Amino acid sequence: MSKFLVDKFNSLTPYVPGEQPKERKYVKLNTNESPFPPSKKAVEYACREAQKVMRYSDPDVTDLVKALAKTYDVLPQNVIVTNGSDEVLNFAFMAYCNAQTPALFADITYGFYKVFASVNGIPYKEIPLKEDFTLDINDYLDKRGTIFIANPNAPTGIALSIDEIETLIKANPDRVVVVDEAYVDFGTESAVKLIKKYDNVLVTQTFSKSRSMAGARLGFGIGSKAIIDDLNRIRYSTNPYNVNRMSEYAGVGALEDAEYFENNCRTIIANREWTVGELKKLGFTTTDSKANFIFARCEHIDGKELYLKLKERGILVRHFNKAPIKDYNRITIGSMEEMQAYIDTVKTILEK
Amino acid sequence: MSKFLVDKFNSLTPYVPGEQPKERKYVKLNTNESPFPPSKKAVEYACREAQKVMRYSDPDVTDLVKALAKTYDVLPQNVIVTNGSDEVLNFAFMAYCNAQTPALFADITYGFYKVFASVNGIPYKEIPLKEDFTLDINDYLDKRGTIFIANPNAPTGIALSIDEIETLIKANPDRVVVVDEAYVDFGTESAVKLIKKYDNVLVTQTFSKSRSMAGARLGFGIGSKAIIDDLNRIRYSTNPYNVNRMSEYAGVGALEDAEYFENNCRTIIANREWTVGELKKLGFTTTDSKANFIFARCEHIDGKELYLKLKERGILVRHFNKAPIKDYNRITIGSMEEMQAYIDTVKTILEK
Repeated sequence: MSKFLVDKFNSLTPYVPGEQPKERKYVKLNTNESPFPPSKKAVEYACREAQKVMRYSDPDVTDLVKALAKTYDVLPQNVIVTNGSDEVLNFAFMAYCNAQTPALFADITYGFYKVFASVNGIPYKEIPLKEDFTLDINDYLDKRGTIFIANPNAPTGIALSIDEIETLIKANPDRVVVVDEAYVDFGTESAVKLIKKYDNVLVTQTFSKSRSMAGARLGFGIGSKAIIDDLNRIRYSTNPYNVNRMSEYAGVGALEDAEYFENNCRTIIANREWTVGELKKLGFTTTDSKANFIFARCEHIDGKELYLKLKERGILVRHFNKAPIKDYNRITIGSMEEMQAYIDTVKTILEK
Repeated sequence: MSKFLVDKFNSLTPYVPGEQPKERKYVKLNTNESPFPPSKKAVEYACREAQKVMRYSDPDVTDLVKALAKTYDVLPQNVIVTNGSDEVLNFAFMAYCNAQTPALFADITYGFYKVFASVNGIPYKEIPLKEDFTLDINDYLDKRGTIFIANPNAPTGIALSIDEIETLIKANPDRVVVVDEAYVDFGTESAVKLIKKYDNVLVTQTFSKSRSMAGARLGFGIGSKAIIDDLNRIRYSTNPYNVNRMSEYAGVGALEDAEYFENNCRTIIANREWTVGELKKLGFTTTDSKANFIFARCEHIDGKELYLKLKERGILVRHFNKAPIKDYNRITIGSMEEMQAYIDTVKTILEK
C-alpha cells in the first residue's frame, strides 16, 4: 500500500478467488468451471476475430446483445454485456445502493457482494440463512434496501422457486431486486421472464459456467430498458469498450450452438446426481444443489482436513474457513472420470 | 434512466467514443487504431487460448506481467495489466483522488479524465493549455492534487520532454503524477525509467495503438510496488479476472514480435510526416504531433464542414465540437494508401 492511497481503501479487504495453482496438475474441482471445452463455433468465431483486433470492439456489443435477446426472448434494449458477470454486479451496487439504500444479502452467499459494497462505500446487511442453509424470503420483505439474491445460491447450491423470487420482487416495488443466476442452467427456473412484468428486477448471468467460457470473461444483465440504461450509463463512464472482440463473438458462437450447451448441462446434472448418491453411501450430508457444484460434509472427517488430504492427492476442492460452513467442502462437478477420481480418493482417505 | 438510480449518477455525462459506423465502409481515420493487423504470434497465441476458455484466466496475469516486465526492464511487481488502459486510469482516479486531492488535468486532453472524475465523485480542475496548445508545467507546480498528463497529449499530439515530466514528478513528492502514454511509441521518450527513481509516478500504456490490438482490450500500468499494490487492491475488489485468456496471450505474442512492432511504428511515423507535409502544401496548420494522429486546421474551410464533407466521401476523421479546437480535425495515421486517399479527398473538397 502506498502513502498516496485515499483513506477509504485502507481497510478494504479484496475478494480472494479460488486457488489457481501452477506448480502441479490437479483434478480441478474448486472454481466451478466446466470440464467441457467451449463450443467449436465459439472457438472458430474467436479466432476469426483475433485477426481483426487492430480495430476496436463495438462499444454497443450489438451482435452479442442481439443474440442474447433472441436466446432469452427479450428485446436488445433489455440486455447489457459485461466483462464477466462480476462487472454487471458491481455496476448494480454502484447504481442502486447508497447510504439510504443499503445492500441486503445472505450471510452465506457469493463472497464478492460484501467486497462490492465495501469498494463502493455502501453499507450492507448480511441476513442469516436458516440453519439448513435455506433462505426465508420473509426475512427480506420488511427491510429497506437493494436485494442481491444468488439463485441458486453459492456455495450451497440451494435454489428459490420462481414464485418466491416473484414474491420478493412484488413486495419491493421501490427498490431493485438483483437475481444473480450464475448457476441457473443446472436446474433452476430463471427469473428472466419476470422482467416483462416488473420494472424493479435485474437478472444477471454468465458464460463462465454452463457455456464453458470462464476464461473469455463474459457476463450479462437482463432487465427493463430503464435499468439497462442506468447500467450502460455507468459502463460508458468507466469502460465503454469493456468487451473485447474475441469474447463477443465467442459468445455469439456459443449461443448458436444450443445443442452442445444443453447436452453439457444435462451431463453435469447427471454427474452431480451420481456424485451425490456416492457421497451419501459414504455417510456424507449434502445440500439439495441445483448448481454445477455440491456442498457436502462428512461426520467422520473435518472439512479442512478432507480438503487438505484431497489436495495432497491431486484433487482440488474448495474449503471456506468460516464458522457455519467450515465442516463443508464445495466440489465442482467435472467429467465422469473426474468425479470417479474424486469419489475413489475420498474412499481411500476415509479408509485410512 | 430508472427511478431507482442513486442521485449521484443523475447528472453524469458518459464518455462518447468515436463513431463506429456499421452502415458503410469508411477509410476509418477517427479512433486512432492501427491500420496494420496484429502480430501473427498474437493471433496464434489467442487462438490457442480460445480452445482453453473453459478454464478461468490467471487473476495475476502472470505470464503477461512477466513479459511486460522484461520488455520495459522493470520487475513484475511494478506492473499491473487491465482491460484496456481506461481501466487502469479509472483505478488511478479511485486510488489517488478525493475531495481533498482533486484531479488536475489540461482543459484540452483525453475527454475521459473528466468522466472518470465525475463517476467517482471526485472534484477536478481543468488547467488551460497555452494558446498554441502547449502545456506549461509551471501551471501544475503550485497546485494541490493528483496530476494526469497525457504524453503525448490527445487530440493535439504535442509531447512534453522527459525532463519536464521529471520536474513535475519531483515538484510533487506528496501526490501521484499519472503519465498516460497511450501514444508514446510514435516518437516520445517514455517516463517508465523514472519509476526507479520516484515512488509517486504511474505510467500507463496500451496495446491498442502501436501494437494493433484495440479490439483485444489490453492496457497496463507501471509504477512502484506500492502503487501497483494499491491498484491491484482495487482490481481484486472489482474484477479480479479482468483480463481474459485470449487477450493475455495475444499480448505475450505481440511483445515477442518486437521487430514487427518497431517496423509498424516507423511506418506510422513516416506516413505522419508525409501527411503533414502534404497538408502544409494545402495551406493547413498542424500541431507538432508525436502520436499516430495529426491535428490540423485549414483557413479555407471550417473544421466541422471539412469533417462532414470527408464523411460524405467515405473518409472518417474526428471533429470535436468544443470552442478552442472546433476549427480542427484529428486525423488518425493509417496506411500510405489511406493517407493518399485522405489527401486526395481533401484536395477535391478544397477545389470545389
